[in-house]
Formats: sequence, C-alpha cells, structure tokens
Amino acid sequence: MALDLKIDISRAMADAVGEEHGVTKAELKEIEPRIAEAHAILRKERADGVYGFWSLHEDKKTLADVKETADEFLKNGYENLVILGIGGSALGTTALVTALRSKFYNIMTKRGRGNRPRIFVMDNIDPDTFKKMMKLCPPQKTLYNVISKSGNTAETMSQLMIAVEAIEKKFGKDAVKKHVVVTSNPRGQGAAKSLLHPVADEYGLKCFDMPLNVGGRFSVFSTVGLFPAAMLGMDLDALFEGCAAMDARCAKAEMKENPAYLRAAIQYIADTKKGKVMSVMMPYSDALRDVADWYCQLWAESLGKKHGLDGSEVYTGQTPIKALGATDQHSQIQLYREGPNNKLINVLEVGRFESSLKIPDNLKSLTELEYLRGKTMNKLMAAELQGTVDALTLSKRPVSRITLPRVNEHTVAQLLYMLEAETAMAGRLYGVNTFDQPGVEEGKQIARKLMGGKG
Amino acid sequence: MALDLKIDISRAMADAVGEEHGVTKAELKEIEPRIAEAHAILRKERADGVYGFWSLHEDKKTLADVKETADEFLKNGYENLVILGIGGSALGTTALVTALRSKFYNIMTKRGRGNRPRIFVMDNIDPDTFKKMMKLCPPQKTLYNVISKSGNTAETMSQLMIAVEAIEKKFGKDAVKKHVVVTSNPRGQGAAKSLLHPVADEYGLKCFDMPLNVGGRFSVFSTVGLFPAAMLGMDLDALFEGCAAMDARCAKAEMKENPAYLRAAIQYIADTKKGKVMSVMMPYSDALRDVADWYCQLWAESLGKKHGLDGSEVYTGQTPIKALGATDQHSQIQLYREGPNNKLINVLEVGRFESSLKIPDNLKSLTELEYLRGKTMNKLMAAELQGTVDALTLSKRPVSRITLPRVNEHTVAQLLYMLEAETAMAGRLYGVNTFDQPGVEEGKQIARKLMGGKG
Repeated sequence: MALDLKIDISRAMADAVGEEHGVTKAELKEIEPRIAEAHAILRKERADGVYGFWSLHEDKKTLADVKETADEFLKNGYENLVILGIGGSALGTTALVTALRSKFYNIMTKRGRGNRPRIFVMDNIDPDTFKKMMKLCPPQKTLYNVISKSGNTAETMSQLMIAVEAIEKKFGKDAVKKHVVVTSNPRGQGAAKSLLHPVADEYGLKCFDMPLNVGGRFSVFSTVGLFPAAMLGMDLDALFEGCAAMDARCAKAEMKENPAYLRAAIQYIADTKKGKVMSVMMPYSDALRDVADWYCQLWAESLGKKHGLDGSEVYTGQTPIKALGATDQHSQIQLYREGPNNKLINVLEVGRFESSLKIPDNLKSLTELEYLRGKTMNKLMAAELQGTVDALTLSKRPVSRITLPRVNEHTVAQLLYMLEAETAMAGRLYGVNTFDQPGVEEGKQIARKLMGGKG
Repeated sequence: MALDLKIDISRAMADAVGEEHGVTKAELKEIEPRIAEAHAILRKERADGVYGFWSLHEDKKTLADVKETADEFLKNGYENLVILGIGGSALGTTALVTALRSKFYNIMTKRGRGNRPRIFVMDNIDPDTFKKMMKLCPPQKTLYNVISKSGNTAETMSQLMIAVEAIEKKFGKDAVKKHVVVTSNPRGQGAAKSLLHPVADEYGLKCFDMPLNVGGRFSVFSTVGLFPAAMLGMDLDALFEGCAAMDARCAKAEMKENPAYLRAAIQYIADTKKGKVMSVMMPYSDALRDVADWYCQLWAESLGKKHGLDGSEVYTGQTPIKALGATDQHSQIQLYREGPNNKLINVLEVGRFESSLKIPDNLKSLTELEYLRGKTMNKLMAAELQGTVDALTLSKRPVSRITLPRVNEHTVAQLLYMLEAETAMAGRLYGVNTFDQPGVEEGKQIARKLMGGKG
C-alpha cells in the first residue's frame, strides 16, 4: 500500500560495513529458528490474553467510548487539556502530539487549532513548571486527565492533589467532575485496585479503564493515548487502521517478511555480537522527534534487565539514544563517525513532507551557494540524510533505515506498533521479561521514606 | 560564596560502588601529574590566545556593544526573535532560554515576557516547521539573527535566503537591515572569510563578530549567545560574573581544588578504566533540561575522535546522553540500574527552586498518600533525586553530582563554563584535538553533491 512503512537493513549488514561491525547473512540465518520459536510463544501469549498491547486496535467499543466522551467534554469549550502522568502515561501522548499536531500547536490561535484545547503534558514535578502551568491554565478553562494504573504514582498524585484543590476551592466539590477525567486500572481486586477509584467515586469522575494486561510503555493505543488524541481531533480510526496494517505484517512467522522481527534480529545481533551497545533513533523530521523519546523508554525499560527468564544474572539491554536529523549532524555525528564503533544508528526518514519550501534565487553574489538556489528545503533535508548515511557507511558504522511515506495517523501508528512488536521479539531473544520493571522500585521506596512514609 | 556550584564525586568512587566500577584514590593520584602537565599546556594556549573561550567574559567592550545593539533593536518592538543557526549556533541559546526564561515563555503574554519578543531557535531544515514558523512570525514583526562562522552552513543559509526574500518582497531591499542581524567571523582573509560579509555589505546589516579562536560549541558566552540573551532581558553582567567566578576556580592547578579538572579525571577514568562508555547528564530541573542537550554536543564533538594528537588511530569518546529527573526515573532508570554497568551518571541538582509548591491536605480517603500531604513538591523532587542516587549506588552504578544553589544567570554561567573547562581538560587526557570536528565534513560533501553542487 502507498502508506506502508519501508524498512531497509542493508547498511547494517556486513556487505556494507564489514563483518566486524555488520550483521552477516549467516548470523541472520542462524537466528531464524530462535525467531520462529519466539514467534510461537508471542502468538500464544497474545491468544491467551497475557499481553494486551497486540490487540488494542481491535477494541472498537473503547474507541467509541473515547470518541463520545471527548465530544461530550469538548462541548464545555476548554482552553487547556492537562495530562497528569509520567513515563508511559505521558510519552505516547507527547509522541502523537508532536507528530500529528504542530510543534507550535500551543501558540496557535484557537481557530488555528480547530477550536481544540491547548495541551500540556505534565510529566515532571518541577515546582516552578507546575506553578507556571497552573497560572497559564486557570481551572475553569481546563480539563485534567490524570493517568496512573495504580493511582499510587507519587508524582502524578501530588499533581492531582494540587489540581483538585484549585478546582474545589474556587468552584466547589461538585465542579471537580467537569474538570477531571481518570485513566486507570479497571475496577477489581488485587493488582487491579487503584487509588484513583475511591477518588473517582468521591467526586463522580469519568473513568477510563487501562486494560490490566497492558503496561504503561505499551499503552499508547489504549485509552491512555486515545483520549488526548481524540480531544485534539486526531483521526482515531486511521490510527487503528495503521495498527491493523502493521499487525498484519508483524503476524508473519517468516523473519524476512516481518519488519519487527527483522529489525529485532538486527538490533540484537548488533548488540550481542558486534558490540553495538547503543541504539540511536534519529528521525530526520521535527514531527518524529518525540517518537524517539517514546522509543527510548520502550527499549530501555523492556530490555534493561538484571535477570533472565531463567533467573540467572544477565544485565542485558542496549542503551537507546534519541537524536534528530539534520540538527544533530552538527552535534553527534562527529562522535558517531569517529568515536568508538559501538552504536547501531536507526534513521527515520519521511518520504514526503506536508509542505514544499523553495529556496529562492537570491543572495546572488554568493556563487558558493549556487547549489541551493531554486532547490527545495525538502531536497536539502533528503540530501543531508543520504549524505549522513553514506558517510556513516564509509566509517563502517551500521545504519538501519525506516521510511514513512508521509507523517499522518496511519503511518505513525504503523511505526509505533512495529517498534512495540520489535521490542516484544527482542525481549525473547535476550531471554528477559519484556514487560516488568523491577529496577525502579527501590528508588521509589527510598524516596517515600525520605518523605516520612513507609519504605 | 552562596551561589557557588558544589560538586560531589563521592558516589563515583570505589568506596561507594566498588573498585570494578568506581574510581580509586590511587587512580586519582596516578592521574595528577597528567592533569598538572595538561594544565600547563592549557594555560599557555590561553595566554597565547590559541583558544578564546576561556576569556570571553573579560571582553567588556563586546558586552557593551551587544547591550547597546539589543536596546536599539528593541525599540522597534519586535514580536519575534528568530535564530537561524544550527549546532553550536543554537544549542547555547536554547540552553540559556530554557534555563533563564520559562518553558512556557513563547505562550506568555507580551507583558508577561516583559515586553520582550518571543524566541524561535530554528536549528533544523524541516520544511513543515520552517513554513509554520514563517506564518507565525510575519517578517514585519520579526528580527532574524543569522549565525554562522563561515556563512557556508547549508541549513542556515537556505533559511536566510527564504527569510530575506520574504522581507525584501514585502518591504523592499532597504528594509532588510531592520530585520536581520548577522553573527559571523570577523572580517579578514583566509579562515576568517565569511559568506555572510558580502550579504551584510549588500544590505547594510549589523554584524557581530564571533572571535576566530572560539569554536561553535564553545561560543555561548560570545556574541552568539549574548545577543539573544540581551534581547530577552537576561542579566549579562551576572552571566559574566558567573563565568569569572568559575574561571577563578578552574584556574587552579591542583586537581582537587579545581572542579572542572576533578570531574574530567573522574569521567576519563570511568570511561577508559571502568568501561563507562556513556556519560549521562540528568538534571532534576526542567530549567536545566537543555543544558544537558548543549553538553551532549560539547562532549561528543570534542572528544569523539578517530585520531590522537600524535596522528595515531584512537577512536575515543564517551557517548553523552541527556536525561531528565524525575521524569526519566519512569523511563531510563530501569536500564541504568539493571542493564550493563556501562554509564557514569551525572546528576544535576537545584538547591532551591524559584517557587515552593505545597501538596494540599486533601483526598483524605487515601491513607496511602499520607506521606505526601502537607509536604511540598520541592521536597518530593529532592527525595526522588536522593532515592535515585541511593538506588544507583546500591546497584554499583557510579554517580557524579553537581548542585546549583539556585538557577539564575550566575549559576548557569558557572555550570556551562565549568563543563567547557572540563571538556578542554578531558581532551588533553584523551590526547585528542578537542577543538576540531573533521568527521562532519564528508557527509556535508556528499549532501552538496546530491544537491548538484561540487563535493
């Protein structure tokens, strides 16, 4: 299909950068049975409902609820949508907003925004930032979407406490339900319990359920990402269609026909056999900048593990790094080309930008700039991407390339879905639990004690 | 002094994380003679004027010119200041703006901005972004500051050509000088020649000189960073005082009294003897977020070198990584704690935020949140920082800590100056040319050829 993502691993292969740094055909062949075996496990887990991210786009009921709720809330004419959430509750939404709305969205006029609210993703507890946001977003004009599976996230809950007080003080308890929407675990016992449920009950808040079998970093196509997307007028159907299209490609057992598996194999071999301990994600597109940030959580938290599935100590995980083309050619490429050869560089390319911008035929005294005149900035961007890929290849640095024909709901959904499937496969290859994050608990406990609570 | 930066390397030492991962006292002792030798060379280079970044804050004449020019231009009441520049021409300004103005600066009212213009740092050639910027910033209300040493930067010059045409078309050739300010090499022959000089001559533009002996990534305290800072009303005197205060500390030959040298030694030993091939810069402050980005260029481009000073192949350079606390505790800390032990983590702490934000005594049904009630978000931030540092220490991951008593011109200047001095020292320890970037040329040449120019 015309909108299908293309992937190109040729510059990560030994043919391009040599056997010391590139993946050989034999190595790819060797890993095929492991991929097949992992495929069977992943398929079974999906069928058994162990991990739910695979099928979020099939949940048309949730889609309808999200759309309807957003339409209902939009009638109130909010100026601001404020997301209270951190990590997986924030990064997916930020990625979607940067990709599918403008970098300048919040400074556009309301009309320019299609009468949609501005968006503020509050994913930190910097008191200066939060105070300034509260001033910019007076409660009466603001809808807060608080997102936490457990309702026990200190950062998010402290934000919520401040927001609820601001609303309640000014407009009374009854007004809170007009200004706060909850996204949390479904009602239930044990792991499903959420501290946000009693809050929702007390104030009569609308609650969106996050499926229990979907972790934060895999939640962008759940209510977590969908509700903000709907509030901003994104095309949710196209998002789901993009997921479905990529799902079909990632359902194939055959590694070479499955972009997620092929990419997982390349990254895994690059890390474990070629010393590429870092995985750079470098979009040549401002719109895709925060997709790189979202990927950094997905890859780091899923694969950075002390213990393998068999309990042994493994200390796995490639370190993901976000970069931005062409900008970082003037910042990181010197190191990527001449420093230690310890990175696999993933270049994200956009086939066609929304606009075409011509470089005019002026400043004529400068003959040195003749090559720019009458060309487009688009062509310059493409040339710089290719120049960088070629230069990296000359230095024997492996590059894996992903091309989005354009940036829209369909292609961005494909990209995120593929990276999720790739991560699930990579976790099997590393032999770790892709879906937990035991290493973050200890720091939280120490912090809680320092605050005077129980550890 | 009350505003002095504090550095704390104790958690990077073997005493805290063991000899396999931490620096031993013996290793520090062993490197002292090399530091002393490098110190002598660096001092001589400074005295001989080989590298100028050391003394930019002593140039009171430039300071006066920048202030006067900014005051003059401000009289025109611009709504927008647009920086056309990439890499070192952009990152310093972005770091200063994020640190010393609000994250929300561009959406504040003009009054909230103290009648100063909004700022747009255009450090990429994404056509969609540039087109949207041009629409948001109509030429008549906009001052462009084009920044390029050579005037031969394809990205920046293509932007300039578009901007000049927009102005000239609407208001005529004579209007261009009211809307464009140039920052480039001083007039001269050879390396000093800049393509921006004939442009400036043709249109009668104000030109700021970048000293020839100051490279882009070391240029934040030159006219490159100073003019935008002045336009936004930053306290340039305090910036210079901060530089001077840190300069005095970094002038000491004795490693243990010199924060830049001590930090350089720790990072160098961590990389070369302890396998810490990555240097994470993790501010616990939204304001300092882009300082981390600026540092990533400084560290990567200065130390990532194929050849040593003696011409041998060395492939040096730690990979710098930007992170953000507390946000990335929910994204990267899992990997930092449980993945391969291959990082030195630099934590940037702020002693006192501008505001104090109390967490109210509400949502009382939730006894689990008792530890938050009545505390401040500030205390929570501090507890999370400490919790993370302690948890990293438990996992034997080395941490180096920098504390800014508060965030203002004085402290931010200290920080940037210290990191520059640290980089200069690190370059000597690695035995590379800190100040060149030969690895970026080839990609540029290929791109130029692809555009139909000469390679």
